[in-house]
Amino acid sequence: MALFTDEEYRARIERTKRSMAEHNMELLVVSDPANMNYLTGYDGWSFYVPQAVVVAADAEQPLWIGRGMDAAGARHTTFLDPENIIGYPDDYVQSPIRHPMNFVADQINQRGWGNASVGVEMDAYYFTARSLNELQKSLAGGNILNADLLVNWLRLVKSQREIGFMKEAGLIAERVMQTALDCLAPGVRECDAVAAVYKAQMSGTETLGGDYPAIVPMMPTGEKTSAPHLTWTDEPYKSGQMVNLELAACRHRYHCPIARTAYLGKTPPDKLDRLASVTVEGLNLTLDAIKPGMRCEDVELVWRNHIAGAGFEKESRIGYAMGLNYPPDWGEHTASLRPGDRTVLEPDMTFHMILGMWMDNYGFECSESFHVTETGCETFADFPRKLFLKP
Amino acid sequence: MALFTDEEYRARIERTKRSMAEHNMELLVVSDPANMNYLTGYDGWSFYVPQAVVVAADAEQPLWIGRGMDAAGARHTTFLDPENIIGYPDDYVQSPIRHPMNFVADQINQRGWGNASVGVEMDAYYFTARSLNELQKSLAGGNILNADLLVNWLRLVKSQREIGFMKEAGLIAERVMQTALDCLAPGVRECDAVAAVYKAQMSGTETLGGDYPAIVPMMPTGEKTSAPHLTWTDEPYKSGQMVNLELAACRHRYHCPIARTAYLGKTPPDKLDRLASVTVEGLNLTLDAIKPGMRCEDVELVWRNHIAGAGFEKESRIGYAMGLNYPPDWGEHTASLRPGDRTVLEPDMTFHMILGMWMDNYGFECSESFHVTETGCETFADFPRKLFLKP
Repeated sequence: MALFTDEEYRARIERTKRSMAEHNMELLVVSDPANMNYLTGYDGWSFYVPQAVVVAADAEQPLWIGRGMDAAGARHTTFLDPENIIGYPDDYVQSPIRHPMNFVADQINQRGWGNASVGVEMDAYYFTARSLNELQKSLAGGNILNADLLVNWLRLVKSQREIGFMKEAGLIAERVMQTALDCLAPGVRECDAVAAVYKAQMSGTETLGGDYPAIVPMMPTGEKTSAPHLTWTDEPYKSGQMVNLELAACRHRYHCPIARTAYLGKTPPDKLDRLASVTVEGLNLTLDAIKPGMRCEDVELVWRNHIAGAGFEKESRIGYAMGLNYPPDWGEHTASLRPGDRTVLEPDMTFHMILGMWMDNYGFECSESFHVTETGCETFADFPRKLFLKP
Repeated sequence: MALFTDEEYRARIERTKRSMAEHNMELLVVSDPANMNYLTGYDGWSFYVPQAVVVAADAEQPLWIGRGMDAAGARHTTFLDPENIIGYPDDYVQSPIRHPMNFVADQINQRGWGNASVGVEMDAYYFTARSLNELQKSLAGGNILNADLLVNWLRLVKSQREIGFMKEAGLIAERVMQTALDCLAPGVRECDAVAAVYKAQMSGTETLGGDYPAIVPMMPTGEKTSAPHLTWTDEPYKSGQMVNLELAACRHRYHCPIARTAYLGKTPPDKLDRLASVTVEGLNLTLDAIKPGMRCEDVELVWRNHIAGAGFEKESRIGYAMGLNYPPDWGEHTASLRPGDRTVLEPDMTFHMILGMWMDNYGFECSESFHVTETGCETFADFPRKLFLKP
């Protein structure tokens, strides 16, 4: 059973077809698992083999094309009619002499679309260099165009049901963060704190089970706080250290990331305390400033002006669109809250605003996931914004 | 601190250079995160942005090239000298006008390698179609060759320290499977069983913390057992159902997958009981038959003959090389235990043998991860092989 109504999928496909027409594409080969899910409902851990959703301007439904053994999963999770779910034989898997994209091209050719102008997602994680070569080689003719992020941009404004899932993820995210803070203490191994977080992510609440987030929990401490993407070790947390908590919850592939900072001790250094106050104040007033009609860069400017007043600056972007996704990233790779991004905020766009302030040997971060409303914005999780002390 | 000695990394790089020479490559651009780790020690959840390890035939050490903020992580985890760790500026990230592979090419050009014959991993997950285009566009000249799986094949035979990590993963895997079986019961939500498994995966043992496996826990039940890559739901497990448990543990990115089957009830159907016996018997005798010098296809034949005698057949491969890896797959994409694979077994090759027997409305699976020894093979985990009953 697909999670959304047929009507919702059809509307998504209609918008996709309109965007295809604007880009002179008659056919679109979608490989990004989040985009495949968005257009059909397909949800499975099968993106380690090539697979695609093919949208044709002149066909009502897209085709799902994947590994034969995953066709049952497609029948289970998509709204598609069975004849639009096509499995390829297993000898296409990890073979030097044939490739699933040859099969995809054959299916396209058989339907008389082999000479169409075909959009492909040039920079999607699982659309490899070989995928493109094999597709091109096997297409009857056709003209390959870059459709990177075409569907991602359509995902920016969420439906009410999508917002609903993100609110549910927000409820789980509150528990996830509380669990992390509860179990953080000097002497606790990093792996055990992460274990507790994972458990909270999947158990969710009594009525809402959790799904796997697209990024693993990040809880670095000590010198690793300056290397943001190292994962955990067996080492115990130590007194007098900061811990960055970059966590998330996920519900039906919709995310609510949330970040906080803890200090393992009673008395944080004054400079950390001050940085925390400035950052939280900035987060509060930047969220307060958000209104539909503002540009992404204007949101960033509110924050930038605030911290400049306190004598700080921050180089990187302060947020990005996010929602439906699969590993390795929950970000949508479209709008960012940064200078130069002139995307105009609309109700039901969803972002993760993450304010990470890194000094030479200390730092503080705090984040919120939110949706733009008719009059402002609303966060998905409700969790105190402050420096947490864990003596 | 890198996990292996400098000597071990140097030996890996020497073997890589020899393979490059055989394939007429002067330069190799490695994008597969497992291969990057293998050649340098680099370990971070940063593969959601393009990054590379560049091996030049005439340079002693490779270059690590990644996002600026991840250079600290590279300094922390690799054996490389600091001057061989190069971060690209953040405006290369998710930009339509510049791409990290332009930066990689610039670095190559600057070192006078721009006209070399360059191997790239054409089908590596995170080496996208655009990555290749941008690299090609920015290289001074040069001739692109396909180096797909070149390093993967070198990973097939493990060192003693690698085997050691896989044995540690085996110890954790036993606890993971026991945890899954302990908490499975009619009425338990799938998400809660998965939560317990995740906790066990990360907590590991008192002395060995766990790392995140490259694939999420799979514990399907009911009709979902025929759709092997669907993940969990909020639904409770039900009496009279089978549950497939496809789990794993990971230690320093080295895996030990393990699969078992449980039946939620006292009295499994006779046909399931019989299938379980035949499969377990087949697993036992196929493992017993393994010797260095055998070909992969010969291993499969032992199994095939056994089940044929019992009136069964199985179409897909029964195992594959595995070890060091990152999401979305722990398999190495090289040797498979299947007809036609003439890879000769050598001591310290490591495989996951997974016997999944799927009938129309029931099935049974059982697996072992093992390394080939001087005289036979040895499994990494020690866990009973049978159908588990959970009334």
